[in-house]
Amino acid sequence: MMSNKSWTFLTPGIPDELFQRGQIPMTKEEIRVLTLAKLRLREGSQILDIGAGTGSLSIECAHLASQGWVYAVERAPEGVELIRANASKFGVENITIIAGEAPGCLAEIPPLDGVIIGGSGGKLFEIIRVVRGLLKPGARVVLNTILLESLHTAVAALEEEGFLGVDLLAVNISRGRLLGSGRALEPLNPVFIIWGTQPEREEI
Amino acid sequence: MMSNKSWTFLTPGIPDELFQRGQIPMTKEEIRVLTLAKLRLREGSQILDIGAGTGSLSIECAHLASQGWVYAVERAPEGVELIRANASKFGVENITIIAGEAPGCLAEIPPLDGVIIGGSGGKLFEIIRVVRGLLKPGARVVLNTILLESLHTAVAALEEEGFLGVDLLAVNISRGRLLGSGRALEPLNPVFIIWGTQPEREEI
Amino acid sequence: MMSNKSWTFLTPGIPDELFQRGQIPMTKEEIRVLTLAKLRLREGSQILDIGAGTGSLSIECAHLASQGWVYAVERAPEGVELIRANASKFGVENITIIAGEAPGCLAEIPPLDGVIIGGSGGKLFEIIRVVRGLLKPGARVVLNTILLESLHTAVAALEEEGFLGVDLLAVNISRGRLLGSGRALEPLNPVFIIWGTQPEREEI
Amino acid sequence: MMSNKSWTFLTPGIPDELFQRGQIPMTKEEIRVLTLAKLRLREGSQILDIGAGTGSLSIECAHLASQGWVYAVERAPEGVELIRANASKFGVENITIIAGEAPGCLAEIPPLDGVIIGGSGGKLFEIIRVVRGLLKPGARVVLNTILLESLHTAVAALEEEGFLGVDLLAVNISRGRLLGSGRALEPLNPVFIIWGTQPEREEI
Repeated sequence: MMSNKSWTFLTPGIPDELFQRGQIPMTKEEIRVLTLAKLRLREGSQILDIGAGTGSLSIECAHLASQGWVYAVERAPEGVELIRANASKFGVENITIIAGEAPGCLAEIPPLDGVIIGGSGGKLFEIIRVVRGLLKPGARVVLNTILLESLHTAVAALEEEGFLGVDLLAVNISRGRLLGSGRALEPLNPVFIIWGTQPEREEI
Repeated sequence: MMSNKSWTFLTPGIPDELFQRGQIPMTKEEIRVLTLAKLRLREGSQILDIGAGTGSLSIECAHLASQGWVYAVERAPEGVELIRANASKFGVENITIIAGEAPGCLAEIPPLDGVIIGGSGGKLFEIIRVVRGLLKPGARVVLNTILLESLHTAVAALEEEGFLGVDLLAVNISRGRLLGSGRALEPLNPVFIIWGTQPEREEI
Repeated sequence: MMSNKSWTFLTPGIPDELFQRGQIPMTKEEIRVLTLAKLRLREGSQILDIGAGTGSLSIECAHLASQGWVYAVERAPEGVELIRANASKFGVENITIIAGEAPGCLAEIPPLDGVIIGGSGGKLFEIIRVVRGLLKPGARVVLNTILLESLHTAVAALEEEGFLGVDLLAVNISRGRLLGSGRALEPLNPVFIIWGTQPEREEI
Repeated sequence: MMSNKSWTFLTPGIPDELFQRGQIPMTKEEIRVLTLAKLRLREGSQILDIGAGTGSLSIECAHLASQGWVYAVERAPEGVELIRANASKFGVENITIIAGEAPGCLAEIPPLDGVIIGGSGGKLFEIIRVVRGLLKPGARVVLNTILLESLHTAVAALEEEGFLGVDLLAVNISRGRLLGSGRALEPLNPVFIIWGTQPEREEI
């Protein structure tokens, strides 16, 4: 039902203001776009989004991977409501919202083509360990965080768990801002994006 | 012929090293991804890429807008060769390479859904004026540049030519770099991305 | 009267929170430090600070160039009051506060060892032209601005007026910010610092 | 002997090109300036510079704290030679060069007003522990590093050792670069500056 959809482009980058937002922090458009580029989607991708917040990344994924499925995990009730509202607003139906806390709530998740971790409730290392068992060979996990501690833990955990090609971006983007008759730069919060790839074949 | 294609994802962000590169400067993966997010593609988009360089943006566009067409303008013979080589490498056939200089060479271009300007040979203002006559209503022009002068000219020209929603990003992204047993940050060149939207309906 | 002074170090970088602040925008500590490094002070330097705001740069100058003198120009009455209050707070007496608008109010200024331009009231080109007549040979003018238009005008005016070594910094600094049990990065507004040097000897 | 000195300003920020440099990495002017602002010098300051490299920070300190003394620790023989050459070039005599490895070589150091750590040879935690015993009450230790691991270790060690006001800057500065008839931005390597303050009085 394309006619329902309020976003009709096949490039990521839905403007922030199109999402319904509450008090929940939101992954900004530019960070979403870079995160999805590192995640890499196919039409049928099965994606898990941990700490989905307002659902902005989940909805971009569900929109792009229109033959796939998105599992959006969020523990805050307000977040769960926002994801539901935003999925409805964007006419996205290939999404399961899981109101719960990772990694505990991940038992039933099928093999995955990609995992996004945007929030971990302090259990980042544990979550990465569990995610390691859920990803298909060659699939990627991508994290984004504003916290230096999570940056450090993410890199350490991805390496310790045997992910390949562990790498990162430090993103400092400013948007234009009209100021009087001129333009200034309005900085987004600096974000770190970290990722790793599931080995193609497990060694025995 | 999907089987030919060396890039099978539907998210932008082809790694730099997959492109054939010469001495021509190349739009880096992260900048390409952000540029395409601001350009906004549909399956059938008709795109013009001025100063196409190695063709990296053209090829991402042609790959994503698989029912559309890309016109890649490049004046350097080495660039023209690289675009050809990269189009062939990625199995992209919906592209016309125009070996020439904008805006002179733009006479035959059909109505467009988007224009990328990555290089202007010092004729940025003139090019933007011509592009204004080529874009369909609601379509976008997106420029990226490392030059402060081009940033200034782009904003001024987009506003003077009556584009709507003229805005910009200043992008400072660093990649992770292994250094001894640790990781440092390797900065990409700072880039400005500037865009504007063709008015929906011309005033008379 | 050293005993009066609330800042006893000989390095620049007085913390922001030690200044009295109103609604007037303030040059942040890190930007002040970089601006002063580009300005270059001696004990007896005669400095002009145009658009002095809260006086934070003027007071750092007066403190460092303790045998020199600072002329602080500010047109907003609230700013004039803040400069006075801050000069008094830091026990700085080698400062003249000029309540007025540059370049009109600069007629009586003696030959200068350095000029800071932090605000121009839209008369940046005119101010730079007047400053050109006030600087001693080899002295520097340093501007800082958050506006892209002022960046452009500053570079153009410094070059057109014949300043030497015109150059600039683009400064993206984030401060640490405690967030829960971790630390995030809090970006300062991006600032451009632009400077040029008065020729040693005028050509005839 | 002021007449010997090739740098006559009382603001930090000696241009990089005035230093003799080898293959040793050098702390860039802008990073030096910010580091010294966080270190905070007085005329008589006793400063320790661990991993002094080319000696650029040591020489700025010795120049500014002209009644004080600088202890410059460097383990690479080439570095030791460069510090000697640069001290001589800038006419700086209030410096002791210690050719050795910290923390082992720090036994004879007197009570300090400030410590800079620019390199640690992988012994950062150990060095911070020893530095904790050397600093006078209220004095500061300031680290700068390009490594994410050192950032993490520095924050953790400063907090564990009981330093007060542990804080940091993430510094992304680009310099202007002439390119054709225009100007681009040339990014310095991103640097983290981390500091903490020795408690005024030890608890028993």
